[in-house]
Amino acid sequence: MHMEFTALRGRHVTLVEVGPRDGLQNEQVSIATDDKVTFIDRLSAAGYPVIEVSAFVNPTRVPQMGDASELFARIARHPGTRYTALVPNLQGLERAAAAGLDEIAIFAASSELFSRANINQGIDDAFRTYAAVCDRALALGMRVRGYLSTAFGCPYEGDVPAVRVAELSARLLTMGVYQVAISDTIGVAHPGQVDRVLHTVGEQIGLDAVALHFHDTRGTALANVLTALQLGITTFDASAGGLGGCPYAPGASGNLATEDLLYLLDGLGIDTGVALARVVEASGFIASRIDHALPSRYVQAERARQQRG
Amino acid sequence: MHMEFTALRGRHVTLVEVGPRDGLQNEQVSIATDDKVTFIDRLSAAGYPVIEVSAFVNPTRVPQMGDASELFARIARHPGTRYTALVPNLQGLERAAAAGLDEIAIFAASSELFSRANINQGIDDAFRTYAAVCDRALALGMRVRGYLSTAFGCPYEGDVPAVRVAELSARLLTMGVYQVAISDTIGVAHPGQVDRVLHTVGEQIGLDAVALHFHDTRGTALANVLTALQLGITTFDASAGGLGGCPYAPGASGNLATEDLLYLLDGLGIDTGVALARVVEASGFIASRIDHALPSRYVQAERARQQRG
Repeated sequence: MHMEFTALRGRHVTLVEVGPRDGLQNEQVSIATDDKVTFIDRLSAAGYPVIEVSAFVNPTRVPQMGDASELFARIARHPGTRYTALVPNLQGLERAAAAGLDEIAIFAASSELFSRANINQGIDDAFRTYAAVCDRALALGMRVRGYLSTAFGCPYEGDVPAVRVAELSARLLTMGVYQVAISDTIGVAHPGQVDRVLHTVGEQIGLDAVALHFHDTRGTALANVLTALQLGITTFDASAGGLGGCPYAPGASGNLATEDLLYLLDGLGIDTGVALARVVEASGFIASRIDHALPSRYVQAERARQQRG
Repeated sequence: MHMEFTALRGRHVTLVEVGPRDGLQNEQVSIATDDKVTFIDRLSAAGYPVIEVSAFVNPTRVPQMGDASELFARIARHPGTRYTALVPNLQGLERAAAAGLDEIAIFAASSELFSRANINQGIDDAFRTYAAVCDRALALGMRVRGYLSTAFGCPYEGDVPAVRVAELSARLLTMGVYQVAISDTIGVAHPGQVDRVLHTVGEQIGLDAVALHFHDTRGTALANVLTALQLGITTFDASAGGLGGCPYAPGASGNLATEDLLYLLDGLGIDTGVALARVVEASGFIASRIDHALPSRYVQAERARQQRG
């Protein structure tokens, strides 16, 4: 089976940096807009193909994201980097369009109870909203990415059937989404499950339009990535420093840290175009603005090594 | 490549529980012998094939292990479980023999500077000592396991050549060791490296007598296990709750937690005979006797889930 690993060498993987949105949205501390701009500009310098900058959500409900338009006006656009944002509804889409975005993301759930807890709408209602958002976004010439959360387990319902994940992924593609980010919102996925879910999803829609978004809550995220790589997935989400989590999911914490993911991918000889040292610089900057140590295991280990060595 | 993962289902993996030795030896707090007996007895109830109970090392140098003989006299022997201990030299071997052990482990290093820092002997001197220990142990009818530490990187030398790991593994087998536990003492290994090292080691000695001992310092341990499983490795070390680390290795922390490993293996449908819930009970007991939270990600996530859910 040696070929399995050498076969990964030289492959290209697309990293989607979600720290400024999925990370900072879930931090308790409010971050100044100036600091967000600096953070995003430093991330841009690392060479990402995609950075999710913010969310055009209701500022009353999610005040951390209230400066979305200002961020898009102020960040330095790096050639080769796409800048995107979460959009929950048509009002958000109009703000995103006014801010000049050419790509957005919508955020659907795989479980009824999580959908209701998270956005106060059941799955079918939410999909109707998103279909309208997609129609309008596509008419405006935007690309739309779709998150499918709680795809490996729901904090309220427990197990989520893989066939449901496949069906909802297909519905998102039918709406015009170019990629579905299948997400382990509460960090319960393990390689056996990743294999089963991707097999089921792959039978329905293939895997070319599938990305994965893991949380490292139970320490399985990198093993899950390895599994997905071997099954042919080439796009992964990660959060610089391991920022954030999900405030609506009990027990959820630990976005997969970009540094940890890059340590794995670099070690496999997989090309991402993203410079690990630059990501460490970017997360090191934002670390001074939050109220806890960065969760990234790589960052923690390197800091300990430098202090003791 | 779907077959890769289904091919793991139903396979048997041997877990070597090293929490009472590699774990507790590296905890700052001194644990009462009574508590160690309770801890080991609870681990035995989980169904382990092998538990490393203690180390017959110099009690002046490593006071945490000073009660090795007493532990072997007091623990309840579970049918089907082998109880072993680390032995550094002939004096330790005689104590182990007097305590009735029929299996011991020796602890060699892959890097000269680590060997000197750890046991004040270079690799060749240490191997001469271990050869004498092996000869005597085999004459006493004991089985001998060999650790090969710093096999994926040394805190003082950095990179360790895979060919050296292969050569030293071969020397351990030549001494009469039945299994070499190739160890990532400082937790730097990643799947690309695991693949390369196992390929090189496999060319020299095959992989039937190879076990792996990972630390989760950079979050890669489970991905490394998955890689090794796919290459045919069937024995893994782990420490209940993630107890311990290595006090002589700067930046080293985080034995792979047995619970995290079991979550992965159970999810892959791999049989170990070890009950995850019982391991959680055992590590939960010892957690109240140490001065920090258990590092196990699974334990932390489940506790958070129970508290919030």
